[in-house]
Amino acid sequence: MDDAYKAEGARIGSDAAETAKGADVVFKVRVPEVAEVAALPDGVALITLMDPFAIEPGLLDALNAKKIAALSMEFTPRISRAQSMDALSSQSNLAGYRAVIEGAQIYGRAMPMMMTAAGTIAPAKVFIMGVGVAGLQAIATARRLGAVVTATDVRPAAKEQVASLGAKFIAVEDEEFKAAETAGGYAKQMSPEYQAKQAELTASHITKQDIVITTALIPGRAAPVLVTEAMVKTMKPGSVIVDMAVSQGGNCPLSKSDEIVDVGGVKLAGFSNLPARLPADASSLFAKNLLAFLPLVTAETGALNLDTDDEIVTAMLLTRNGETVNDRVKS
Amino acid sequence: MDDAYKAEGARIGSDAAETAKGADVVFKVRVPEVAEVAALPDGVALITLMDPFAIEPGLLDALNAKKIAALSMEFTPRISRAQSMDALSSQSNLAGYRAVIEGAQIYGRAMPMMMTAAGTIAPAKVFIMGVGVAGLQAIATARRLGAVVTATDVRPAAKEQVASLGAKFIAVEDEEFKAAETAGGYAKQMSPEYQAKQAELTASHITKQDIVITTALIPGRAAPVLVTEAMVKTMKPGSVIVDMAVSQGGNCPLSKSDEIVDVGGVKLAGFSNLPARLPADASSLFAKNLLAFLPLVTAETGALNLDTDDEIVTAMLLTRNGETVNDRVKS
Repeated sequence: MDDAYKAEGARIGSDAAETAKGADVVFKVRVPEVAEVAALPDGVALITLMDPFAIEPGLLDALNAKKIAALSMEFTPRISRAQSMDALSSQSNLAGYRAVIEGAQIYGRAMPMMMTAAGTIAPAKVFIMGVGVAGLQAIATARRLGAVVTATDVRPAAKEQVASLGAKFIAVEDEEFKAAETAGGYAKQMSPEYQAKQAELTASHITKQDIVITTALIPGRAAPVLVTEAMVKTMKPGSVIVDMAVSQGGNCPLSKSDEIVDVGGVKLAGFSNLPARLPADASSLFAKNLLAFLPLVTAETGALNLDTDDEIVTAMLLTRNGETVNDRVKS
Repeated sequence: MDDAYKAEGARIGSDAAETAKGADVVFKVRVPEVAEVAALPDGVALITLMDPFAIEPGLLDALNAKKIAALSMEFTPRISRAQSMDALSSQSNLAGYRAVIEGAQIYGRAMPMMMTAAGTIAPAKVFIMGVGVAGLQAIATARRLGAVVTATDVRPAAKEQVASLGAKFIAVEDEEFKAAETAGGYAKQMSPEYQAKQAELTASHITKQDIVITTALIPGRAAPVLVTEAMVKTMKPGSVIVDMAVSQGGNCPLSKSDEIVDVGGVKLAGFSNLPARLPADASSLFAKNLLAFLPLVTAETGALNLDTDDEIVTAMLLTRNGETVNDRVKS
């Protein structure tokens, strides 16, 4: 593997400190550990997934002690100009595709309708819960495989997106629903009353489904429960649930991280890191996301030049010049 | 499971002998063992997969000792009237679908082209070797998933079928090729010269492929080698070969039954029983295949009445009235 990097012109350091020596900008994949921060040069720009809602105060202290400008990729604003930098979107897209492939592999029947000389195989019924980037790609992939696809979301705008992909939208469409889309493009938390009505509709729908894929995440909070234990028990043996929120506690309380749990013949799959199951594409898109930041943090000469007037930089910046500068992580 | 059968009106016997007592017709899935034959009533019609090219003389003796009329589902003739009985076709269709799902699951990239804000993911290149029932379904499934699909077969008629599914046909189209289709619809064995030319064309093509699915079986013989060790070594790390012929020795000498072998980053998957990975559909279609035989072996009253004038029955019948009656298994 090192050779593949060398062939592309990379120098491989003997350890993190030696590798980062002299760097102005450091790209990473995961949130750094405190020891890793100590190995970085003073004053670098660090661009990575910072897991900002679970960040430890000790890590902020370590970053500030070295005057590191830490930019959290999770805070990439959802504006057109930042789309090419949006790692959550690039990885969610892959995760949505992969969730359907995993579901199809776990499911003990074929997905498409097959009309054979020995009789017709009915198409699988697939229900996608949560229609963000991951959910939309899951709909598209399940449709490609010939499934009959329904989907639900608390954002009214999702209705048209679902229809445009050839799936049917399932939701309680009351006044609260119509008012629910927030500016950031993420779902907001719905009232207990709405959740109860939606749960009732979901319960009657889910019992007829073959594959359910849940994608609902709320930034900085535990994932909402969309599929209760009671609902799972009404599903047919052989049906499959892929819980894409398992790393945030799960959209189903029965799912377990990186396990396939069998509940009366219903299989609950909780993959904590679906993009990592498409490693080549996940790395390639993540690398392109990182590269897209370079013009925001470097001058034309290539030297570090953080553009703190840029709304993308200000949204993402957690620490700078020894201070925590982002209200979303100040506690 | 027993309860599900009882709910449909079945009686569950305590053992094979008690279950089969009084039966005129016995349906099975796999070739019986000699001890199982001993548990059957004298003179029954036994309809099952008999694995006729690997049948042991002792089994024929056991069947003849009980005057059993054994019908081998593998010998279902490929005529229109017998299509609904053709278990090899119904199972191959499922296997072809499943081979692509397994391939997509093993492959560490996405299958479809994805145009994202962070760049374009190229579609996977999928090459199907052998375009019978399994190969055609594999082409259809890979196309559904958005792959760029090529396919090859020694039967000229396959060319149009491949094109009709939106894939490109790859073969040395010389005179031998044009004369190669046999009446039975199976591929015949090609000359060493043709195989060499085809291997050369395959070698230059295969090095560019992401997923290769081999489906070539020749009844009663070892599977032909289509992908040599040298070819595997020219493939890119991360590419996948699904060898559907692994239970007959394999289309690639490196593949192993029910293992995923890694050869320099190329993954060779040898699933010995792909239909069993879609158990619900495989059982359902197999059951319908079996049921379709009933009118050929029973009178309208339901009593055993083997129609030995019927070409389907004569093609399939191995033993009857204490004698082995099929030239294809007489040794």
